[in-house]
Amino acid sequence: MGNTVRRVAVLGSTGSIGRQTLEVVRALPHRFRIIGLAAGKNTDLLAKQINEFKPRFVYYQDRTIQARLPKGDYQLLSLEDIASHPAVDTVVMATSGKWGLSPTLAAVKAGKNVALANKESLVMAGKIITNEAELNGAQIMPVDSEHSAIWQCLNGETQKATQLILTASGGPFHHYSSAQLNKVTAEQALRHPSWQMGRKVTIDSATLMNKGLEVIEAHWLFDMPFDSIKVLIHPQSIIHSMVEFIDGSIKAQLGYPDMRLPIQYALSYPERLPNPQLPRLNWETIKNLTFEQPDLDTFPCLKLAIEAGRKGGTYPTVLCAADEVAVELFLSQRIKFIDIAKLVEQALEEHQSIAHPTLEEIMAADNWARERVMQLVGGDNP
Amino acid sequence: MGNTVRRVAVLGSTGSIGRQTLEVVRALPHRFRIIGLAAGKNTDLLAKQINEFKPRFVYYQDRTIQARLPKGDYQLLSLEDIASHPAVDTVVMATSGKWGLSPTLAAVKAGKNVALANKESLVMAGKIITNEAELNGAQIMPVDSEHSAIWQCLNGETQKATQLILTASGGPFHHYSSAQLNKVTAEQALRHPSWQMGRKVTIDSATLMNKGLEVIEAHWLFDMPFDSIKVLIHPQSIIHSMVEFIDGSIKAQLGYPDMRLPIQYALSYPERLPNPQLPRLNWETIKNLTFEQPDLDTFPCLKLAIEAGRKGGTYPTVLCAADEVAVELFLSQRIKFIDIAKLVEQALEEHQSIAHPTLEEIMAADNWARERVMQLVGGDNP
Repeated sequence: MGNTVRRVAVLGSTGSIGRQTLEVVRALPHRFRIIGLAAGKNTDLLAKQINEFKPRFVYYQDRTIQARLPKGDYQLLSLEDIASHPAVDTVVMATSGKWGLSPTLAAVKAGKNVALANKESLVMAGKIITNEAELNGAQIMPVDSEHSAIWQCLNGETQKATQLILTASGGPFHHYSSAQLNKVTAEQALRHPSWQMGRKVTIDSATLMNKGLEVIEAHWLFDMPFDSIKVLIHPQSIIHSMVEFIDGSIKAQLGYPDMRLPIQYALSYPERLPNPQLPRLNWETIKNLTFEQPDLDTFPCLKLAIEAGRKGGTYPTVLCAADEVAVELFLSQRIKFIDIAKLVEQALEEHQSIAHPTLEEIMAADNWARERVMQLVGGDNP
Repeated sequence: MGNTVRRVAVLGSTGSIGRQTLEVVRALPHRFRIIGLAAGKNTDLLAKQINEFKPRFVYYQDRTIQARLPKGDYQLLSLEDIASHPAVDTVVMATSGKWGLSPTLAAVKAGKNVALANKESLVMAGKIITNEAELNGAQIMPVDSEHSAIWQCLNGETQKATQLILTASGGPFHHYSSAQLNKVTAEQALRHPSWQMGRKVTIDSATLMNKGLEVIEAHWLFDMPFDSIKVLIHPQSIIHSMVEFIDGSIKAQLGYPDMRLPIQYALSYPERLPNPQLPRLNWETIKNLTFEQPDLDTFPCLKLAIEAGRKGGTYPTVLCAADEVAVELFLSQRIKFIDIAKLVEQALEEHQSIAHPTLEEIMAADNWARERVMQLVGGDNP
C-alpha cells in the first residue's frame, strides 16, 4: 500500500470489533481514513464516532433517533451501498449475525478488500461469497485471531497447507463435567478467561460453538477439507492457530489475546505497521503453554458445527440461526446452558437441507430454524 | 525448482548432518542427485556412500587410505573445487570447524546455493561471506534448526523482523548449579536430552556456547543487531525459533527435533516436498511447552559469545578456536567442564582484535587462540 491512505468503512462500528477497529485507525491516522460508519442501535456512541471520524457515509438501524445524531456532511446510505461504494477501499464487516451476509456479498461483488469479522456470512453462504470474491477480484481478509494466524502463516508459502490447527481457549467451563454445566449461569458464561468479546461470541466460546463456526469459516477461507482442520484446546490463548505443511513443518502465530492485531493486519496487509498500543509478548512471564484435545461429548456444539459444515447445504445456516436464538434464550434465562446444544441438535435433525442453496433459500432456512427453536421451547421469537 | 533434479554436493558427508542429508536425498531420488561427496577420515563410510550415490567428485582428507576407496568414475577434487564446480547447484556445508570456511567462501564466490550447517564460517568470517554472497548472487540457506525456523517464518514477509527469538533446549545440565557443573563428566555432557548431534556440538549445547554461536550466525544471516536477538530456553525443543514483527505479531516454526526437516527445506526451497520419513507433530501427546530465561551466570559461554559477536573483529574467531580446543581438552579429560568457559574467557581477554580482518588475519587469530589455550593448560595443541 506504499504510503497511501487506505479508505475504510466499518459496518458494525459500535460493537466490540468495530470499536477496536476505530482504535487502530485512531492510532494510525496517517494510514487509514474512516469513510463509512454503520451501527445498530447504539446511537450515542455512533454520534461520538461521527464527530470524531467525520465519515462521508453513515448507516444506522434505528431511524427513530435520527435527531440525536450530529449534523454533518455525511450521507445516509444502506449497508450495501456503503460496502460497495467506489470511495471505499476496505470494508470491515463487524456486524453480527445474519445481517452481515447481504453487505458482505455487496462488498465482494464490488471487488473490495473485505476485513471479515462476521462469522455468519461464510458459515451460511461460504460458497456464494467465495465464488463472488474470486469472480470479482475481492480479497477476503480474516479478522478472527485464529484465521488471521493461519493467513499470516500461509504468507509466502507457494503450496497449500496439509493441516490447519485452530486453537481454542476452552472457554470459562473448560474441564467442567456435564453435571456442572447443567448448573452454570449466564453471568458465569459471560466471564471469558482470556478474550474480551461481545455477548453472543462469549457464550459461543463457552459452548465451543464459536470454534465450530470457525472450522466452517476456515474451510471456506482456505479451501481446506474438514478432515484437515483440527481443533486444539490451548487455554493461554497465546498461539492463535497453526498450519502444517507437506514436509511436516508447522508454523504458528503468537501474541497476547488482543483483537487489534488481527484487525490492523487485515487493514494494513501485506504491510505490517508499528503501533505502540499493540502489546508485545513478554517471554519473562510466559512460562507454560498447554494443549489438550477438545471434549466433544461434554461440549457437543463443536461436533454439531463440524457435522453441519461437512454436510453443507442449508445445515450450517440452521446451525447458526438455531444457535443465535438459543443463546438469546439462555441469556434471558429461559433455557439452561446445556439446552443450547440440545436445541441446535434438534433443529439440525429436523431440517430438510437444500444442497446448493440460493441466498433466498438460505434466508428461508434461517427463518425456519429460528421459528422452530421457539416452537421447541414453546414461545415466540425472542 | 519445478520438477528438475537439483545437483547436490555434500561436504562433510560422513558426519551427522552429512549422513542425514544423504537420508533426505535417498528418500527423494527424483528431486536430488549427489554430485560430490567429501569426508574427513571415515573412509569406510565414504566408500559405502560412493558406491550408493555414485558421485562425480570426491574429496577425502586422509590420502593414505586411497586404496580402500571403491574404484569408479569419480574425480578427486579439492573441497573448494567441488564447492564451486559448475555441475553443482547446491553445496551442503556440513564439515565442522574452521575447515568449512574456505570451501564456503569458494561456494558463495561461485554463486551457489549454500545449505550452511558449518557454524564457524559465519562466526569467523560473517562479513566476508555475506558480502561475497551478495556480490555473486549466492543464496545462503540455513540448516541449523533455529535459523531454518527463522527463515521459514520470514518467508513472504516484506519487512525486516524486529526481534529474533532463538530457542535453546538448555542441554543436559539445564538447572544445574555451578557446584554441580564442577563435577560433570564428558559422558554426561554427551547425553543430550532432545537432539542427536556430533560430539563437538553436543558439548557446545551443554555449555550453551552453541546457542551463542547461533546468535552470531543469526546476526549475519538475517542482518539483525545483537540487541534484537534473544535466547529463550525451551526444553522440549518443539518450537525451533520465533520471529517478532513490527506490529508485535510473532511467528514460530515447530516440529520434533529432527535435522532432516531443515536439511530438506534448504535443499528444496522455495518448494516443500512430501517425505513420509519426516515425523509429524502429534498434538495428542504434546501437553506442555515451557520457557525460561537462560542462566548467563551459570552458563557464561552464551554471554561470552554474544559479547564476542558484538565486539566483532577477530574476537568471534578466537571464541570459536578457543572453544574448539577447550572442548577437545574436556573430552580427553584434561580439563573440567567449567574450565571450557574459563579458557575461552581468558583467550578473549588477552586477544588483540583486528577490526576488519582479512581471511589471513582470521586464520592467524585462530592459530593464536589455539596455541594460547594450550599454553594456558600447559600442554601442546591436542
